[in-house]
Amino acid sequence: MPKNSNSMTDLVPLYPILYEEAVRRALSEDFGGRGDATTDAIVSPDDRATARIIARAPGRIAGIDVAGFAFSCLDSGLHFDVRVRDGKDAVAGETLAIVRGAARPILSAERTALNFLAGLSGIATETRSIATLIAAYPACVVCTRKTTPGLRVLEKYAVRAGGGANHRFGLDDAILIKDNHIVVAGGVSEAIQRARRRAGHMVKIEVEVDTLEQLEIALKEEIDAVLLDNMTVHMLSEAVRMVDKKAITEASGGISAQTAEAVAATGVDLISIGWITHSAPALDLSLDFAFEL
Amino acid sequence: MPKNSNSMTDLVPLYPILYEEAVRRALSEDFGGRGDATTDAIVSPDDRATARIIARAPGRIAGIDVAGFAFSCLDSGLHFDVRVRDGKDAVAGETLAIVRGAARPILSAERTALNFLAGLSGIATETRSIATLIAAYPACVVCTRKTTPGLRVLEKYAVRAGGGANHRFGLDDAILIKDNHIVVAGGVSEAIQRARRRAGHMVKIEVEVDTLEQLEIALKEEIDAVLLDNMTVHMLSEAVRMVDKKAITEASGGISAQTAEAVAATGVDLISIGWITHSAPALDLSLDFAFEL
Amino acid sequence: MPKNSNSMTDLVPLYPILYEEAVRRALSEDFGGRGDATTDAIVSPDDRATARIIARAPGRIAGIDVAGFAFSCLDSGLHFDVRVRDGKDAVAGETLAIVRGAARPILSAERTALNFLAGLSGIATETRSIATLIAAYPACVVCTRKTTPGLRVLEKYAVRAGGGANHRFGLDDAILIKDNHIVVAGGVSEAIQRARRRAGHMVKIEVEVDTLEQLEIALKEEIDAVLLDNMTVHMLSEAVRMVDKKAITEASGGISAQTAEAVAATGVDLISIGWITHSAPALDLSLDFAFEL
Amino acid sequence: MPKNSNSMTDLVPLYPILYEEAVRRALSEDFGGRGDATTDAIVSPDDRATARIIARAPGRIAGIDVAGFAFSCLDSGLHFDVRVRDGKDAVAGETLAIVRGAARPILSAERTALNFLAGLSGIATETRSIATLIAAYPACVVCTRKTTPGLRVLEKYAVRAGGGANHRFGLDDAILIKDNHIVVAGGVSEAIQRARRRAGHMVKIEVEVDTLEQLEIALKEEIDAVLLDNMTVHMLSEAVRMVDKKAITEASGGISAQTAEAVAATGVDLISIGWITHSAPALDLSLDFAFEL
Amino acid sequence: MPKNSNSMTDLVPLYPILYEEAVRRALSEDFGGRGDATTDAIVSPDDRATARIIARAPGRIAGIDVAGFAFSCLDSGLHFDVRVRDGKDAVAGETLAIVRGAARPILSAERTALNFLAGLSGIATETRSIATLIAAYPACVVCTRKTTPGLRVLEKYAVRAGGGANHRFGLDDAILIKDNHIVVAGGVSEAIQRARRRAGHMVKIEVEVDTLEQLEIALKEEIDAVLLDNMTVHMLSEAVRMVDKKAITEASGGISAQTAEAVAATGVDLISIGWITHSAPALDLSLDFAFEL
Amino acid sequence: MPKNSNSMTDLVPLYPILYEEAVRRALSEDFGGRGDATTDAIVSPDDRATARIIARAPGRIAGIDVAGFAFSCLDSGLHFDVRVRDGKDAVAGETLAIVRGAARPILSAERTALNFLAGLSGIATETRSIATLIAAYPACVVCTRKTTPGLRVLEKYAVRAGGGANHRFGLDDAILIKDNHIVVAGGVSEAIQRARRRAGHMVKIEVEVDTLEQLEIALKEEIDAVLLDNMTVHMLSEAVRMVDKKAITEASGGISAQTAEAVAATGVDLISIGWITHSAPALDLSLDFAFEL
Repeated sequence: MPKNSNSMTDLVPLYPILYEEAVRRALSEDFGGRGDATTDAIVSPDDRATARIIARAPGRIAGIDVAGFAFSCLDSGLHFDVRVRDGKDAVAGETLAIVRGAARPILSAERTALNFLAGLSGIATETRSIATLIAAYPACVVCTRKTTPGLRVLEKYAVRAGGGANHRFGLDDAILIKDNHIVVAGGVSEAIQRARRRAGHMVKIEVEVDTLEQLEIALKEEIDAVLLDNMTVHMLSEAVRMVDKKAITEASGGISAQTAEAVAATGVDLISIGWITHSAPALDLSLDFAFEL
Repeated sequence: MPKNSNSMTDLVPLYPILYEEAVRRALSEDFGGRGDATTDAIVSPDDRATARIIARAPGRIAGIDVAGFAFSCLDSGLHFDVRVRDGKDAVAGETLAIVRGAARPILSAERTALNFLAGLSGIATETRSIATLIAAYPACVVCTRKTTPGLRVLEKYAVRAGGGANHRFGLDDAILIKDNHIVVAGGVSEAIQRARRRAGHMVKIEVEVDTLEQLEIALKEEIDAVLLDNMTVHMLSEAVRMVDKKAITEASGGISAQTAEAVAATGVDLISIGWITHSAPALDLSLDFAFEL
Repeated sequence: MPKNSNSMTDLVPLYPILYEEAVRRALSEDFGGRGDATTDAIVSPDDRATARIIARAPGRIAGIDVAGFAFSCLDSGLHFDVRVRDGKDAVAGETLAIVRGAARPILSAERTALNFLAGLSGIATETRSIATLIAAYPACVVCTRKTTPGLRVLEKYAVRAGGGANHRFGLDDAILIKDNHIVVAGGVSEAIQRARRRAGHMVKIEVEVDTLEQLEIALKEEIDAVLLDNMTVHMLSEAVRMVDKKAITEASGGISAQTAEAVAATGVDLISIGWITHSAPALDLSLDFAFEL
Repeated sequence: MPKNSNSMTDLVPLYPILYEEAVRRALSEDFGGRGDATTDAIVSPDDRATARIIARAPGRIAGIDVAGFAFSCLDSGLHFDVRVRDGKDAVAGETLAIVRGAARPILSAERTALNFLAGLSGIATETRSIATLIAAYPACVVCTRKTTPGLRVLEKYAVRAGGGANHRFGLDDAILIKDNHIVVAGGVSEAIQRARRRAGHMVKIEVEVDTLEQLEIALKEEIDAVLLDNMTVHMLSEAVRMVDKKAITEASGGISAQTAEAVAATGVDLISIGWITHSAPALDLSLDFAFEL
Repeated sequence: MPKNSNSMTDLVPLYPILYEEAVRRALSEDFGGRGDATTDAIVSPDDRATARIIARAPGRIAGIDVAGFAFSCLDSGLHFDVRVRDGKDAVAGETLAIVRGAARPILSAERTALNFLAGLSGIATETRSIATLIAAYPACVVCTRKTTPGLRVLEKYAVRAGGGANHRFGLDDAILIKDNHIVVAGGVSEAIQRARRRAGHMVKIEVEVDTLEQLEIALKEEIDAVLLDNMTVHMLSEAVRMVDKKAITEASGGISAQTAEAVAATGVDLISIGWITHSAPALDLSLDFAFEL
Repeated sequence: MPKNSNSMTDLVPLYPILYEEAVRRALSEDFGGRGDATTDAIVSPDDRATARIIARAPGRIAGIDVAGFAFSCLDSGLHFDVRVRDGKDAVAGETLAIVRGAARPILSAERTALNFLAGLSGIATETRSIATLIAAYPACVVCTRKTTPGLRVLEKYAVRAGGGANHRFGLDDAILIKDNHIVVAGGVSEAIQRARRRAGHMVKIEVEVDTLEQLEIALKEEIDAVLLDNMTVHMLSEAVRMVDKKAITEASGGISAQTAEAVAATGVDLISIGWITHSAPALDLSLDFAFEL
């Protein structure tokens, strides 16, 4: 588990091929396939500018290269100078990057660049805040598949930038047996046994349990991890004891900033939180033009 | 202005062609281009099920047809029965829709369907909460271009479902002269005059002003709307008086649930709020399997 | 209105992101996904050439950068030297651009490059011819949505290059109430009122009227522009008098080079003409190889 | 050669897979990715209508199924009743098709459907007019690669609907040695010999010649067809005599309605005309709502 | 491990969304974006036919639904009647499916349908032949990432249809430390430790070793599986003994039909073979028209 | 016919636009839209490496630029040094190319690059082996449309790299009347006559015959080529005699390395073999890291 790896130096950048299409699609969406009526009316193609991307609130940064790519899509001649790298914290008022070159493409790409950067930094900031709360415990905060449609690879990256770890990426890269699967299979044991028979040898199996009785049944089967859903802190402690390190333990369900530390104190390995991706408020950013530097 | 139109009956559905590609992309993203390892291991293609999408918290619904489309992408034979239409409010525990048919595609499309529905309903719910606060005033809540990259048409629709109105959709469908444009043009007057000279005859012009002095200058030019940015309630009242109905007035900048009513009371026509799209928490939803109905 | 802006210096270039996909698609279409059988059989990858794009007839140029992009798609090492920029007039025999480098990609991209340039310059040339006819009047020539499927952003740009202005770009960026809408609404007043209630605050409303009676009704409502469809010059004059500058006036319907000046003389603000986009003959161009310069 | 096949009964319909993407792209272009502001404001999703597509001028029809597909993209429940099939002639005022169903998608798809149908019917009409002029001669009118970028398969089909035949579709399906290839190869003979050595066994070779001297040289090589470019009627007659049926003869270059018959009378097999695709005026069409039938 | 699941009844069909795009691309590739010159010239749109897809050689079938989808892309009215389902064996001369309906789309889709079915059945057939050879042993045959670019999800499915199991699908769903990673990390231990620190909790780790010395080092670390590359049968036996069921053992490298049984006899859990995907000969198929049934 | 052109110097490279999309798709497929879990865990973005692509078996190379493009997709700063060009033979152990730069993208692109290069070189190698066997005869080996879906342009190129020639590329660029067409038309003569009436003037017509009787009928019509399907060597000799150079002769059907020379000795012009594309085993390649050079 990547608990020890949530320092900034461990954050591996994404290959641009993983997000280029999303950025081009966003620019096209903002243009309506047409262009920027305001800038084209007011700004000459010859006007030049220097602009700063500034954090208006403190936060953990993620997506700075994605923002840079948005500008370069409109003008490969723009110079994008990164001042705060992904995985680093910015204070309010800090300059995250400086863009120099033709004023027109800077203005036209501004909103797209900021929408990516603000959203991803918002996720990183929320993740970091939970990670900080539980820093004294071995538990690690992990995200879920409750991500924005079309942006999962970026949002999972933002979680890593915030010091969290990733759960599986999608339906294909691990087996997570959830309540509805158990209903269809007719029971916890049967569901696990079917999964074990069919899983590829490189695929881990996790099972969701809601009660200690279900957990007891699950532990009789061969599982890699157990998701302890919507349990009280007391139940979680008991569950960790029952599992006794024979599987990875993951607490899930309604965990908030208020409860995270208590959950971590139960000794669970992972705390998974959907809202760090689906409900993180965007980081407040602005792009300000300047003529001196 | 659409203040009178924020009742549910006025909500016009989106043509599916506007979101089909986004849904297919989201399913493909969740599959990793491969499939659903868990469901394929546990559920037989012959298993059948009835599942309910349930609101775990109260909220305004948006995106129910998008969710339905996600299921139909995997199996056109699934029956999707809508119980709470877009633009209507659901109470906690209410069933929003019922899906019936093969269990396998229901399980495989579940997360994609819920991710769309939860995110859009979250936006509708936040919009509605603001719209309710200012219901006694003529002001209307409007969204911005601070939307999730790739999902703008859906998020703008969710704002309408919440009783809000839409600002321009993108860079192309109206002119909004912002601070950075004014910097490049060298002044408010010059920026407006350039825009007036170049704007198409079907394009409206709005200008952002930060001070009453700027507003005074702007009002000497021919403008359709004025965005009053980051002004106090006192300044807004004075601005509304100065504009004297010669242009649409829009308050913007850091307006919260706490301040919305006071802002509306100044007599502004519009209150634009970025966070109803970029920071609205997702509505809490679940999909529960049942075997009886 | 952009009447004063139809000089060449006002023509703002399109961001390449707005047409790159169309050019790649055209090259792929010409290749059949395979290649250039003739050139591959006859020309060595080592052969080098200098080729001139020449106007065989006089005309207003539009699309020179699009043509250049077509060549660069096949070989980024080709040198494309523009001699007549978009928005400028060329005389018969004039060299518009010179391409230098490997002969093979020049030959393979030739037809795609010329198809774009000839079509767009044809539109610019027709537009300019109308604009010239009405130069003494305040009226401005505007295009419609009768554009080639898939090429609208380029064709609207070509109209600007020809000294015309753009009407709305699509169904989304302005409201134009046409005869069929009026039929469905049950009358001019009802249609306008519905639109007024539902229109966003940044959206202008234009209504099409066929008679002076309809115009009289329309003028009782709040409208931004009125499209006077298929009216005689006499009716147009009367309509302009009735509107009395309270809305923008647009003449439309069967206006030709023969009638344009008389229409302009009625005092209308805009003359919209579908055939400058849907029926403009292509400008006659050739690409000629030379070995000296 | 398909001279005998230019009757309507021979026109084979295109598989929709060949144009579906172009139609979806055109609808998306008209929507700006967003929707139809006018119709959504005025027309209820419950309003129903019957609309007729009417030819306002006489012409040869092409693209009626493409138009029908545009409507079905927005609403698969619309009923599209074709009255004049592709390859048939319509008189002014004739109803080409009737669309029945929800009024909203009919209005939203109208412009896209008509843009395809008007453009393609314009090409068919021009082609037919030339075909009629030369009907007494064996010569057949053929199109070129001077087609609208992205719409070639449709425009080539429209030529067939007009009673013309198709030249090669692209750079890959036949060898046409043009002047610039000859310049690079260093001569007509050398160019043909290289092509002969490299051509696949299923690929025909045509060579463009400008003079009878070039023709004489070309005839010493093994060629399938010869393109007689920009020759006078007198030269063409002599060329036909020289070729003596040993290759297909194609007249090309500046052939107009005025000169077509004289060219055909020289005995050439084919008359290729670029302007039937690149400069054909659109056929004048309208879509009219009615409430009775 | 799925050794027990390689019966036909366990083969779960792919959701069509996983291959529809590949089939449409293949049809478009065969059409060159244009159509079927032969069929359009010879076959009337009214001609109807019944055609059988026949195995000319015995083999295990995979891809029958993919073939059916190819036909339905051109004509949704075609009736596709499957006689041998994926995962079943066909004898030489056996009818795999019968297609009935319009002759034209059957002929035009034939090659695309057969190319998919023949290639995938070839993979299934080779996989089955190896699976049969080792049926007496617990070892299971697995595929690699050496698949045809763009067709991996189908080829992995074909391996399952042949009674094999899947290794990881791509670079993202499991960690496989190969020789080059070890070179960069500076040693087996260091590479495993880095992976362990960084791997998500749902990701398994396998390490490739070439020698028993490397294996000894690897076994001191926490690993889920070990890939024994290019080892002799004697070395493999020793390796299995050393691992002693503490990790999954996988034999790899140059294993052929001649050596597979001996390898399986060593007691390894998995035998991975690249050539069952990258070098499997296509199954010989034909589509034969008939007029009776 | 290109018999004389199968030397390496005649191999014209493909424009990258013809395969770029296929390579990006393959990388995305291997990443699952996410990334490379192993390399990201073990290799630092700062690690640098030199890697050699090595042939582990002798073979004819095709696709080296495609492989190079795969690396450049992930990092445009990688240096790709080609040592054995397409169309040249490599001995076992020979270095085909050297990649230098950041280790991370080299490792992540390795499998995609090798999958293309191995598959295409396998086709080139099989083609060359047949071409060598028949080198003493005028016959040329040609491929069919039995290619991997989505990769035809590359596989047809690989055949040329192996010294073979290409049959038609798709359904659109030539007419090949096959058995099923003859069934529908009701006979060989009728099928040819229909094709002759409808074929464009630049389209060649080939007809498949299974017997000498069919050949006799076919030769009474105007055909360009005849495909002699599944005939014995004795029948082929007789067929060549009957055709007497009035059409191109192509032998087809079950021709193997064992029979190729005897078939060539009959005097046929072409020998078409499906398995050189659909069943060629991949060339065995590896990518080896080194730290010195």
